[in-house]
Amino acid sequence: MSDAIVHSRTHLGRTRVLDIGTEDVTLPSGVRATLDVLKHPGAACVLPMDGDRVTLIRQYRHCAGGFLWEAPAGTLRAGEHPDDCARRELVEEAGLVAGRLTGVGHVFTAPGFTDEKIHLYLAYDCAPAPVARDEDELITDVRWFAWSEVDALVARGELCDAKTLSVLLHARRVR
Amino acid sequence: MSDAIVHSRTHLGRTRVLDIGTEDVTLPSGVRATLDVLKHPGAACVLPMDGDRVTLIRQYRHCAGGFLWEAPAGTLRAGEHPDDCARRELVEEAGLVAGRLTGVGHVFTAPGFTDEKIHLYLAYDCAPAPVARDEDELITDVRWFAWSEVDALVARGELCDAKTLSVLLHARRVR
Repeated sequence: MSDAIVHSRTHLGRTRVLDIGTEDVTLPSGVRATLDVLKHPGAACVLPMDGDRVTLIRQYRHCAGGFLWEAPAGTLRAGEHPDDCARRELVEEAGLVAGRLTGVGHVFTAPGFTDEKIHLYLAYDCAPAPVARDEDELITDVRWFAWSEVDALVARGELCDAKTLSVLLHARRVR
Repeated sequence: MSDAIVHSRTHLGRTRVLDIGTEDVTLPSGVRATLDVLKHPGAACVLPMDGDRVTLIRQYRHCAGGFLWEAPAGTLRAGEHPDDCARRELVEEAGLVAGRLTGVGHVFTAPGFTDEKIHLYLAYDCAPAPVARDEDELITDVRWFAWSEVDALVARGELCDAKTLSVLLHARRVR
């Protein structure tokens, strides 16, 4: 079955990271529909691994109304390769330089309304480096967790960032 | 540390599911920032479980440029309880009535720019029912997968919907 045919795009505006619009499309089923399509530059997310431990950061997320435990992640800069973005965000947010980086796939965060695609990585042999956070990022903690602690966080509902749960599923598969 | 203080919201428009805007806030750190805040009504996602098998659906996602394997899910209607949304979407999308539903938590899909919160469920003792899909939904397959098949899909990068990977992580924890 082929892809949708896009007849037109109605542009609603731009935010800092998103190009907001709707598209008038014919779906592969032949049905015509108007769909939300928020264009995003893409992102990278990287989970530092060390034997039976992983690193998570504690970040304030205004949209979530509080702090979340997350794997380090960030938006691709113009022309930036996802590998480079992962290495950059790992230093900036967690203060870690990856000795070795392994790509484990990607996720779409909300494919019903945005093309945001996050490339997922595991980082090994990490060494400390100075953090370099954006002024409007609020990260209060960088911590190594044993897998048993991660499982407990998930079970208690204290780990509820979708990209982080996704990269943890990959990490469990390969550890 | 307390929550952010919202000074004002700039409204950029509405799409079918989103209220698009930016907010001028003072973060708990005291830094003032303008952040993307796309308001979403919330959603529910439900993974049918049967012994060592789970059900996934194959859905066309224009924003992802193709078909994704996903757990059944959908947006909350006005006033709808997430449990009811999960039961409704399970029937509509997968043609399954849940005998028993267990909430396993929630995820934020993209907390950097939207408050979308998806409530996650596992469904047990499912019985067949007629599907009732929206005209602009294109679901071509509903299939039971053994866990070994799910693991293979994840390893091959063929399962890349973040909410689905998130509910699968919870499912592995409790099965």
